[in-house]
Amino acid sequence: MSSIDSRANLKRMFEAKSVAIIGASGDPTRIGGRPVAMIRDMGFEGTLYPINPNRDEVQGLKAYKTIADVPGDVDLVICAVPGGLVEDMLRQCAAKGVAGVIVFAGGFAEVSEEGAEAQARLTAIGRESGMRIVGPNCMGFANFANNLPASFHPAFATPMPKGKIGLVSQSGAFGGLSSIMATQRGVGFRHVLTTGNEGDVGVADCLDYLVDDPGTEVILLYIEGVRDGPAFLDALARARKAKKPVVAVKLGRTDAGAKAAASHTSALAGADAIYDAAFRQFGVHRVHSIEEFFDTGAALAVGGLAQGDEIALVTVSGGVGVLMADDAAARGLDVSELPRGTQKKFKEIVPFAGVNNPLDVTGQIINQPEIFEQAMRLVLDEGTYDSIVGFQGAGLNTAEAAATALTMWEALKKDYPDKCFAVASLMSVESQQMFEAAGIPAFREATHATRAMAAGAYFTRQFAQGFDWNPAQGSDAGLEDGPFTEARALKTLAAAGVPVMETRVATSAKDAARAAGDLGLPVVMKIVSPDIIHKSDVGGVKLNLSSASEVESAFTEMMSGVAARAPDAKLEGVLLAPMISGGVETIIGVHMDPVFGPAVMFGLGGVFVEVLKDVTFRMAPFDTAEAHRMIDEIRGRAMLDGVRGAPASDTDALAEALAAVSRFAAAHRDRLLSIDINPFVVLPKGEGAMALDAVIELQD
Amino acid sequence: MSSIDSRANLKRMFEAKSVAIIGASGDPTRIGGRPVAMIRDMGFEGTLYPINPNRDEVQGLKAYKTIADVPGDVDLVICAVPGGLVEDMLRQCAAKGVAGVIVFAGGFAEVSEEGAEAQARLTAIGRESGMRIVGPNCMGFANFANNLPASFHPAFATPMPKGKIGLVSQSGAFGGLSSIMATQRGVGFRHVLTTGNEGDVGVADCLDYLVDDPGTEVILLYIEGVRDGPAFLDALARARKAKKPVVAVKLGRTDAGAKAAASHTSALAGADAIYDAAFRQFGVHRVHSIEEFFDTGAALAVGGLAQGDEIALVTVSGGVGVLMADDAAARGLDVSELPRGTQKKFKEIVPFAGVNNPLDVTGQIINQPEIFEQAMRLVLDEGTYDSIVGFQGAGLNTAEAAATALTMWEALKKDYPDKCFAVASLMSVESQQMFEAAGIPAFREATHATRAMAAGAYFTRQFAQGFDWNPAQGSDAGLEDGPFTEARALKTLAAAGVPVMETRVATSAKDAARAAGDLGLPVVMKIVSPDIIHKSDVGGVKLNLSSASEVESAFTEMMSGVAARAPDAKLEGVLLAPMISGGVETIIGVHMDPVFGPAVMFGLGGVFVEVLKDVTFRMAPFDTAEAHRMIDEIRGRAMLDGVRGAPASDTDALAEALAAVSRFAAAHRDRLLSIDINPFVVLPKGEGAMALDAVIELQD
Repeated sequence: MSSIDSRANLKRMFEAKSVAIIGASGDPTRIGGRPVAMIRDMGFEGTLYPINPNRDEVQGLKAYKTIADVPGDVDLVICAVPGGLVEDMLRQCAAKGVAGVIVFAGGFAEVSEEGAEAQARLTAIGRESGMRIVGPNCMGFANFANNLPASFHPAFATPMPKGKIGLVSQSGAFGGLSSIMATQRGVGFRHVLTTGNEGDVGVADCLDYLVDDPGTEVILLYIEGVRDGPAFLDALARARKAKKPVVAVKLGRTDAGAKAAASHTSALAGADAIYDAAFRQFGVHRVHSIEEFFDTGAALAVGGLAQGDEIALVTVSGGVGVLMADDAAARGLDVSELPRGTQKKFKEIVPFAGVNNPLDVTGQIINQPEIFEQAMRLVLDEGTYDSIVGFQGAGLNTAEAAATALTMWEALKKDYPDKCFAVASLMSVESQQMFEAAGIPAFREATHATRAMAAGAYFTRQFAQGFDWNPAQGSDAGLEDGPFTEARALKTLAAAGVPVMETRVATSAKDAARAAGDLGLPVVMKIVSPDIIHKSDVGGVKLNLSSASEVESAFTEMMSGVAARAPDAKLEGVLLAPMISGGVETIIGVHMDPVFGPAVMFGLGGVFVEVLKDVTFRMAPFDTAEAHRMIDEIRGRAMLDGVRGAPASDTDALAEALAAVSRFAAAHRDRLLSIDINPFVVLPKGEGAMALDAVIELQD
Repeated sequence: MSSIDSRANLKRMFEAKSVAIIGASGDPTRIGGRPVAMIRDMGFEGTLYPINPNRDEVQGLKAYKTIADVPGDVDLVICAVPGGLVEDMLRQCAAKGVAGVIVFAGGFAEVSEEGAEAQARLTAIGRESGMRIVGPNCMGFANFANNLPASFHPAFATPMPKGKIGLVSQSGAFGGLSSIMATQRGVGFRHVLTTGNEGDVGVADCLDYLVDDPGTEVILLYIEGVRDGPAFLDALARARKAKKPVVAVKLGRTDAGAKAAASHTSALAGADAIYDAAFRQFGVHRVHSIEEFFDTGAALAVGGLAQGDEIALVTVSGGVGVLMADDAAARGLDVSELPRGTQKKFKEIVPFAGVNNPLDVTGQIINQPEIFEQAMRLVLDEGTYDSIVGFQGAGLNTAEAAATALTMWEALKKDYPDKCFAVASLMSVESQQMFEAAGIPAFREATHATRAMAAGAYFTRQFAQGFDWNPAQGSDAGLEDGPFTEARALKTLAAAGVPVMETRVATSAKDAARAAGDLGLPVVMKIVSPDIIHKSDVGGVKLNLSSASEVESAFTEMMSGVAARAPDAKLEGVLLAPMISGGVETIIGVHMDPVFGPAVMFGLGGVFVEVLKDVTFRMAPFDTAEAHRMIDEIRGRAMLDGVRGAPASDTDALAEALAAVSRFAAAHRDRLLSIDINPFVVLPKGEGAMALDAVIELQD
């Protein structure tokens, strides 16, 4: 099966027109009876085939003995039989040419080694035939657009408005809960896809499907632990290129949470910092509560994305206005002042109004209700804001008041189609739903409106950035077999395009003196041995040698001293390099994440990394623009701008080096274990940068 | 008037039994008619006296021509007349012996210099007579316990359950809004006090009243900008000693917010970092959204405080369990594992359950609903947890299910009276209110339950700490007149108990050599002149002088060199000190905040302060325990534990110095402008610490 077929089968499955239920029961409360009842009752327009060897009819529908007996194609099979029977059923499904099967049964990889083997046999059936398998140990999915609740959990059949949100959940229970939550929030889902044990279909496949689904405009991911990191990154990259916002909850960001997640899921745990880095790199918006997850998803689906960072705030309460300004600014939005002329105009309407930004219409709203719309229009006409939040206090507390306000908001939205709107007020859930049906996100908490605007602006910024993801596009530079001495490590990196300090290897005292003359005095001397890692511990490092004779005697002394201290080590000579002074010490590393593969680390040297753990990561490979974002992310960034009169550093050279390391790491992901370039010295702007020391380790 | 009388009058006013309305109108929609109608309709049991010179009767009540005509005492006057008439009315009220007056009218300090003068005259009437004034430009207050809505804003008459929460709001509009929000949240307020322009009664007075009010158990503060910092700190200290939790929203934490706040309020803006420090020091819990403000207040009022940091999580969804574990751990709670034996016992009930912590009862709950209670009781019986959160998914989605669950929760609460409980589930607002009426905080969002538990545990930790606040208890050490040379500054600090480097001042080359001999070579030499601040700029610093002859020639050279470069400076000689090597460089400062007075700053030297702004503050004075908390708060804390093989630093000596500086700053708050001790070197444990340089500046 090609990946194209396998993708097509996934689509056929999620958009099934013909659905068979193996183990269909006449009792609609049983696990095999529920899907039959739920699918029929929700108004599914396709064909439903109950499969039951003992009955001719199930819940009023004609039943078939086996899947082979079903006339015509079957897109989706819901397999509701006990675990022990699943393998046989899957074989029958594959023989029939079914596009995909949902397996509810548990007792597989989540419980034992034996279960894992049984699961692997299911996976193999799928891989051989191209038939996709969701599960085992899952709750299936719901395609609300097609009224297809392919699950046994009644929550998946929750009636809800037609929506644009696709949710992928690694937790079945959460998938069910979320349908109920969406209904209560008045937000429509289009798809809820749960993945269970991910014997075949994983979160990456589901994400991939949603990227291609034209009706899905916003994607929500609920992740416990990704199994196939590279596929996940590829799918994120496709979402990013398709400019579909992805909002994610990823569990296990604390030690306690990671421990709980590990005991809860059988997925391999990648480091949370790596997930975080991947989310930043691929433009995913990570949140930490269910409330924020849905609230953000709903706002983006309903109101779209603010097209820039400038936000205007109009309020009936000065205090709440300030609160929103604080929240917006803390989230990186630009709360810039209204134009002076506009301020003056509104002062003419309400002399004591606050007219900076927020524009506070004051309690005067009670006597002159029309000033709110006047304020909104003034701001929209004369400002250059991308988004506008209106806080109307308790003014929309009755259904009538909300309806009146909605008329105004609808007119504004029509008159200013490029702006992004949100209303905040103590309104009822019903009024909230009315606003959202009209395309205006509505919030009870004022700072949730600014929070949603910030999320939209984040995606707009991300989508405006150049983006490329091609893990195959690595470096041409080779990677020989290990072990690597410092000299070989530096040479290897140099060939990969990383600037390294000029060095010479010398094998005699005379040789060393000559090399030092070539490099320019003073020099540093270090022992070269594949067997010695901590060179200074054995007297294998000498600094600041400033004459030919000093170099010669240092050579003699080092060779005999090290030989005495490390008698078993093979000594290949010494490495000579110029003494470098000045510049900012940084660290560049490559870490091989068990889930995602090669990640490049960057940090400042010294206390920044040792005390503050001030480092950041990116998935390899990436370009210099991404490297610059990485550099800008560390807390000690100002060190590279020059502090205490120091000159600004050559961050372009640093970015080039980071990108070169990332390409090299990507190219050699199969053999590389880690790279540690420490220090990587960044010289003043225009003078470049260079690795002074490097360690390369290969996988066993 | 003594402050005791003034406090008694405030209490009489807020708990008024007799209320007069000046400017009372027969029309209940007008500003003078509304309070009459609202107070009567809400069921106020005291006496109401409408005052209107033109009518004998107002809204069915006997009216009086003037306040003087009212028979008997008047506790509270609501003054609903235009601004121009207020002063005369206040005089009449003062003559009558009224305890307190609310002034609604605006047009005072918030609009002009003239208005500020008029307001000052009102304040003076109050100060002379002891009569308290709330406002001007305010919305009054509501005493819900006494059914007394002393406001013209209908929101203040919102019916709500009797509550234990006292809210002080500097925003009138927010005061009104909050009453509506509380009702919708099903939470009862006891008091809502708004302060307007704070001509007399400020946020500190209101807080002070609530501390003494036995029915108020939780205090919420909504602050735009405190006018009387010292009074506010005193009131916070009283709340802290009374162990009443104070939750605060303080506006203006970002530049944009601070700018908006400044244009919105006439209060002086202290630095937000100082507010933040004061909140930490006085055990206030600061939040940044209205939703969190009420949610936290409600949970504390309903469920009390968790008596420690250990939290247990029981869940029907593994995923949501992990989410709660993440949230709890991120907020500093201890999500420690269940005892092994307990884990085993629950595995016997549900073999595939997650039994670490969270305890995940799994989807098995559908078939065995009783396992949730079993899980809760097992955890409570066998664990040592202080709090427990139960997540019941959509299981409480119907009124019947919620009622059934409540029976279980009530039994648990009864059986484990020392534990703190919270339930999270997709329940209706009505069900939520039912739970909370039974003393069990109920949340729709699971992480809001852990958030509330963390807030409670925070207060418990705070209340368990020793706490003292006595701003009058300063240092006995004197502060002479300025300007201060480095030598005098160090001497002054030494007298105040701050360890300083041993130094000598020399006025001749011979003198210098002798002093260097006393101190021990090598030494540092610095010019002493009241006219020179940047000594190294004029050649006034020489390091590492290692012999008597070097010292002598350095003296001669420095005196003539500095005289040439700074011909107008008076040179008093040179300061000699030993070269100090080793230790960790820190900075201790004193900053005079315009609102709060002396604040002590602490940070690490070098990049920590210059690049990372890694500093923290405390209000002076404080003890060494508080100083230790301050030290523990900085991000670079590990530097003091010793990094790269360095020994641990003498943080006890550092804490002593910080406390000594704080006492000195408090004692001289009236004359001191700033102190900058940089560097303050902390030596290895047991070796002490010392100031190497210091600058003291006085106010003009």
